[in-house]
Amino acid sequence: MDVMQKFDEERRLVSLEIQKTLIGKPERLYVAARHLCLAGGKMVRPVLCILSCRAVGGRTEQAVNTGAAIELMHTFTLIHDDIMDNDDMRRGKPSVHKLYGLPTAILAGDLLYSKAFELCDPKTVHILSKATSEICEGQDLDMSFEERTDVSEADYMEMIAKKTAVLLKAATESGAVIGGASEKQAKALAFYGLNLGLAFQMQDDILGLTADEEKLGKPVGSDIVEGKKSLIAIRSIETLPAAEKKELLKILRKKGNSESEIKRAVNLFHESGAIEYCKKKAGEYVKNAKDSLEALPKTEARDDMYRIADYVIKREL
Amino acid sequence: MDVMQKFDEERRLVSLEIQKTLIGKPERLYVAARHLCLAGGKMVRPVLCILSCRAVGGRTEQAVNTGAAIELMHTFTLIHDDIMDNDDMRRGKPSVHKLYGLPTAILAGDLLYSKAFELCDPKTVHILSKATSEICEGQDLDMSFEERTDVSEADYMEMIAKKTAVLLKAATESGAVIGGASEKQAKALAFYGLNLGLAFQMQDDILGLTADEEKLGKPVGSDIVEGKKSLIAIRSIETLPAAEKKELLKILRKKGNSESEIKRAVNLFHESGAIEYCKKKAGEYVKNAKDSLEALPKTEARDDMYRIADYVIKREL
Repeated sequence: MDVMQKFDEERRLVSLEIQKTLIGKPERLYVAARHLCLAGGKMVRPVLCILSCRAVGGRTEQAVNTGAAIELMHTFTLIHDDIMDNDDMRRGKPSVHKLYGLPTAILAGDLLYSKAFELCDPKTVHILSKATSEICEGQDLDMSFEERTDVSEADYMEMIAKKTAVLLKAATESGAVIGGASEKQAKALAFYGLNLGLAFQMQDDILGLTADEEKLGKPVGSDIVEGKKSLIAIRSIETLPAAEKKELLKILRKKGNSESEIKRAVNLFHESGAIEYCKKKAGEYVKNAKDSLEALPKTEARDDMYRIADYVIKREL
Repeated sequence: MDVMQKFDEERRLVSLEIQKTLIGKPERLYVAARHLCLAGGKMVRPVLCILSCRAVGGRTEQAVNTGAAIELMHTFTLIHDDIMDNDDMRRGKPSVHKLYGLPTAILAGDLLYSKAFELCDPKTVHILSKATSEICEGQDLDMSFEERTDVSEADYMEMIAKKTAVLLKAATESGAVIGGASEKQAKALAFYGLNLGLAFQMQDDILGLTADEEKLGKPVGSDIVEGKKSLIAIRSIETLPAAEKKELLKILRKKGNSESEIKRAVNLFHESGAIEYCKKKAGEYVKNAKDSLEALPKTEARDDMYRIADYVIKREL
């Protein structure tokens, strides 16, 4: 069984809180704000927040509001990212700006962000606001990489640390703080979240190239079309022989690639060994995450977090 | 002397805090985020936050960070509003999205908002997040009014309460809480901020039609071009004779009016008595604001707030 299926009760509690929070007027704005929140996300972040709270002796109920707040923050970044990246699809549905127009989509994102700070535990405000500042920095890096072909592995790691991993780190660290963790425990859980987040984004990049289009909920290879610099692309550019490197760069520089060009790029990614390289790296970060759990007492929550770390790189969507 | 000139020291402290907060990388993002913050705003909100803190016995230093946070929030809403309303000018300079493009402008706004929550006093998080949620609702109402010709005075008051007045209310209420106000004092200062904010927005609407273009920093009558429903427009539609009403509605429904059409609309606003009506209303809200100060001990800060209330409807920009 997929480990994430175990947390239906946690997801139900978080969903309830989100639904309660997102009732309001003007109706049009709240409908747009609810759209993506209720589009069937896996709620990895709230689950991690709640498990972190329990892993240090806290109760589920203490962390539900903050978990919901973090899911709202995550959704807010998705809505704004889709505008910036011109992505028309998200989780198999039209993105918010496609459905409700640009102004309402900007505002729906802003509203989710405000509501998150209304909802979260006061003790977590500084963790969460620091994380969202870094997410903005990470998104800016991600966009600026599109114009560049000299992005290094270190640049990429900084970008995904900020764009993706800090919010998972914020989720585990917040849960720890809410649950009354010792400083050592809070650090261990923050480290777990960060490393898990790095692996999570790498696996996302891999799935974006190799997964089933229907499961993915968006076109395979959309990162290639947008000129996104994943570790896979970076590693391929670094290691391919001159002729293939030139061919790949041409595809990555071009916007609006044909299907056969996308296929060719994916083949070059495989040939270069970059996809395997990226899988190996993701596995190392998962190991880091699991190792850090040793600082915690042996509980069912800790075991679940161990299994979630494995799940992150084994999942198919 | 303009009363606002008295607060150069408060503005200097707040500016310093904003500048310290807005140093970071990627450079491009932080440059965009700083642009409007340093474009010479009057910093009415931080000044009110600091004065409210002092009016209940607190010290300036206690409220500087939260004052700076509120200015960042205000600037965040301006950047996003300019995108939504397609406004190319702000404070006499090109708006952020004109200078740096849409994606960076969205992100610069998001960053300011995050930084605000990093900066503010933890005791004020709930006041501030509630206010920004209402600002989103107010902006949505404002946009939806553009398509409507049946907007009532009550609709308008709800819209400006949310879009403008709640942040001034949040500024005075936050200052009060930080300064250790009694419940009665905090309520009085919140009431002052709300009423001042209503008068402030009404005066803004008046100045947008009657002020000197250079002082205004944007074209006179831009509200007419955008079909914005100010109280002046609403009152004119309600009171003008049928022929003039029809003429006015035609101008308000059209986007991209000529200069002579804008002049004609402004003349109809004057003829209908709506500008005078709006001035009178603004004066009433200023009186409410001043009356509420009676609940506070007699201090220099309270006297200053009394004078700021008068200034709000006497100012020329």
